[in-house]
Amino acid sequence: MDAAEFRRRGKEMVDLIADYLENIEQRPVYPDVEPGYLRSLIPEEAPEEPDTYEDVVKDIERVIMPGVTHWHSPYFYAYFPTANSFPAMLADMLSGAIGCIGFSWAASPACTELETVMMDWLGKMLKLPEDFIAGTHGQGGGVIQGTASEATLVALLAARSRAVRMILASDPQRPETGITSKLVAYSSDQAHCSVERAGMIAGVRMKKIPTEQSDKYAVQGETLRRMIQEDKAAGLIPFYFCATLGTTPSCAFDHITELGPICNAEKIWMHIDAAYAGSSFICPEFRPLLNGIEFADSFNFNPHKWLLVNFDCSTMWVRKRSDLIGAFKMDPLYLKHDHQESGLVTDYRHWQIPLGRRFRSLKMWFVFRMYGLKGLQDYIRKHVELAKEFESLVRADQRFEISADVVLGLVCFRLKGSNEVNETLLKRINNGRKIHLVPCQLSGQFVLRFAVCARTTESRHIREAWRLITQLAEEVMQELPH
Amino acid sequence: MDAAEFRRRGKEMVDLIADYLENIEQRPVYPDVEPGYLRSLIPEEAPEEPDTYEDVVKDIERVIMPGVTHWHSPYFYAYFPTANSFPAMLADMLSGAIGCIGFSWAASPACTELETVMMDWLGKMLKLPEDFIAGTHGQGGGVIQGTASEATLVALLAARSRAVRMILASDPQRPETGITSKLVAYSSDQAHCSVERAGMIAGVRMKKIPTEQSDKYAVQGETLRRMIQEDKAAGLIPFYFCATLGTTPSCAFDHITELGPICNAEKIWMHIDAAYAGSSFICPEFRPLLNGIEFADSFNFNPHKWLLVNFDCSTMWVRKRSDLIGAFKMDPLYLKHDHQESGLVTDYRHWQIPLGRRFRSLKMWFVFRMYGLKGLQDYIRKHVELAKEFESLVRADQRFEISADVVLGLVCFRLKGSNEVNETLLKRINNGRKIHLVPCQLSGQFVLRFAVCARTTESRHIREAWRLITQLAEEVMQELPH
Repeated sequence: MDAAEFRRRGKEMVDLIADYLENIEQRPVYPDVEPGYLRSLIPEEAPEEPDTYEDVVKDIERVIMPGVTHWHSPYFYAYFPTANSFPAMLADMLSGAIGCIGFSWAASPACTELETVMMDWLGKMLKLPEDFIAGTHGQGGGVIQGTASEATLVALLAARSRAVRMILASDPQRPETGITSKLVAYSSDQAHCSVERAGMIAGVRMKKIPTEQSDKYAVQGETLRRMIQEDKAAGLIPFYFCATLGTTPSCAFDHITELGPICNAEKIWMHIDAAYAGSSFICPEFRPLLNGIEFADSFNFNPHKWLLVNFDCSTMWVRKRSDLIGAFKMDPLYLKHDHQESGLVTDYRHWQIPLGRRFRSLKMWFVFRMYGLKGLQDYIRKHVELAKEFESLVRADQRFEISADVVLGLVCFRLKGSNEVNETLLKRINNGRKIHLVPCQLSGQFVLRFAVCARTTESRHIREAWRLITQLAEEVMQELPH
Repeated sequence: MDAAEFRRRGKEMVDLIADYLENIEQRPVYPDVEPGYLRSLIPEEAPEEPDTYEDVVKDIERVIMPGVTHWHSPYFYAYFPTANSFPAMLADMLSGAIGCIGFSWAASPACTELETVMMDWLGKMLKLPEDFIAGTHGQGGGVIQGTASEATLVALLAARSRAVRMILASDPQRPETGITSKLVAYSSDQAHCSVERAGMIAGVRMKKIPTEQSDKYAVQGETLRRMIQEDKAAGLIPFYFCATLGTTPSCAFDHITELGPICNAEKIWMHIDAAYAGSSFICPEFRPLLNGIEFADSFNFNPHKWLLVNFDCSTMWVRKRSDLIGAFKMDPLYLKHDHQESGLVTDYRHWQIPLGRRFRSLKMWFVFRMYGLKGLQDYIRKHVELAKEFESLVRADQRFEISADVVLGLVCFRLKGSNEVNETLLKRINNGRKIHLVPCQLSGQFVLRFAVCARTTESRHIREAWRLITQLAEEVMQELPH
């Protein structure tokens, strides 16, 4: 395929995409296929000679679409949102064409520099402390990671390395492995599973801090303080705490204004994971949820969830660049360049797990400019309103209960009754394929999560979803033995 | 921006991309900007109200292009290639629009299933042993990672977890941290810096195996055997060896037919990193370079380097799926789904570091079908021929020498003489901005790396590059003190 044919096929693809997104709500949101469905639909091997492009495009409807869970359908309420906007798609097209690999400043200066400045733009939208903004006198700055899991891991590794350095500074004879085996990290029992996994990867102990329904599933300062004291008494070395703002099960918020000072006093690295909720902090009315950020060493959230920047774009800020870089730095000759020792450039490969990186800041730039801060704020507010609307519908129905405070776009609810009946209800909902939800567990209860996800969700979709849920609930309850 | 406007802007972007790629060789391949150039060209904050799309597009030439290193210019010979093809870009557009996050089978069955089958297609093109193909009775299969660095790390973590399990099986009382502190991994001193970094992340000892110019920079069986014996005698536990096929400095190949049996006998996990060279193994004449794969536990290469699939697409196969999954598995309720215990489905989140993942197999599907195996083989062969052409030009000039065997698309060469004179030559080359190269170090010598990179590189570009190099070499040599 040459450039001339790409002009034609590319324009057809633009129409195909617009058609898909304009008509997405006509498709069943959840696919009706069995595991292994796809293999029989296509050949067992790649063709020797090229296929025609027409055949490839025909296969999108024949092979792919029947197996797609349509995350951008306004009837998709599962997990958390993943972003999808036209400006982000346009920027991604450009990023693909430029196709540079931005592992160092020299490998493509624009790729690195736009990222640094876009991270500053976004940091300012969130009113982050100046320490985190690269274009100030502070020592911090931002980087785009692929996912929040990677940000959590990178922060943990930086914390591990800082802890080992600090201990060796006071006790140079101590063997390093002896230190690592004593390190202990903490996170909420409500934290994302990737936090525990980061501990496994880094080979350090990770303790879960218990939370209570009565505390709205937030980690309490007193609990953390007690665990730290007990661990220190047992000869362990507390070094990392991952706070969550907006947990995955119920969108709970750890009390970072209380937890931060404890971490600072104990020289524990505090990382804040606000993967979902972080986008809302651009609105003044939600910004108080981030109070306490001034105590954090690193902070991360996912514009690819709720800020209209297509996956992947997980934005991470650190208070001290050197803490991150120190954990990873490797400089073989084939990656050296003239400017790297000048102190003026950023080589983002030292900030992340992979070496290679795409030109992802273009998406941020297009989205921020085409929506403007006000447009982005409107978008967040609309989703929160839709969630509140759904909450009202649930509260108005005596058969149901709300399981956790509705702060942003997630509603946790259930039928009053057994876990079984709720499991049955969820199964019916998803088997209907008209709307899609996933569950969570809160205090031993099986709970349904209703997350406002798609960019195009409107009040009518919410009401339709509720109509379906109540209709199925009625069926389920009628089948119950009396 | 609504769908109607996207139809218009998307088509304009397709033309902009085609124009960019058709005229790329008119641009200086390496940018003439100083660190910090970009910040002053754009506002300090995101706009409150939306900008116009026209302004955004105008800024591509004003702000971005002056700072781009043009990796797809036929005058780009630095690092290794990164892929860029029209079918891959079309597939990426579609992937962006579907915008699903494929962390589990249920999250989008098509995303997972196409990946499994495309990994089989590619595995068959490479004539991998059946063990590595998912659609067989074996226990293996393939997964798309973001980068080779991640594949190396994932393999190392799986190996660490397997080693700990094996030792605990025979000695259940032994503390786990005591095991980890005794583990030792190996790789060539020519291996990519990400291998050493993987050891740092996983918190295990990583030893570099010395190589010699006389052995063509390949790891020798005898050296590995000796190191293993010494380490075992010292009470250490050898558990992982990362072999490289096609090293970054000089495209050297470790002797895996010799090394594999040693690893197997010692129960050491052998991972093969063929990031660059792997694509060539689809050609029967280069497939012998992969002989010995039958001894490997995992294998990885980057179609996003040399197989026309845009970044990121790093393909990794394992002999035993359960080894990989066992190292990472986490199953919170919000990610559980009906089919996951059936044994028929793949939840790729257990195979990788991040949780989220894009629909990257679409790129493989489009590229494999639009080129066909023959088209892909032709592409590889053409690049190798162009490298051989460059090698002949170097060999014909008495002032220069070839520094390592030219096996694929990389030529390592230098002026006979001091490192200084070669450093000066390289600086002149890159400052000219007409072609772009990076250096490497081989046996203490400063060497120039000439990698055939762009899809559109032709013989005339190679000859033009050589003309420039010799002209600058002449200048540099005339300036030398006699």
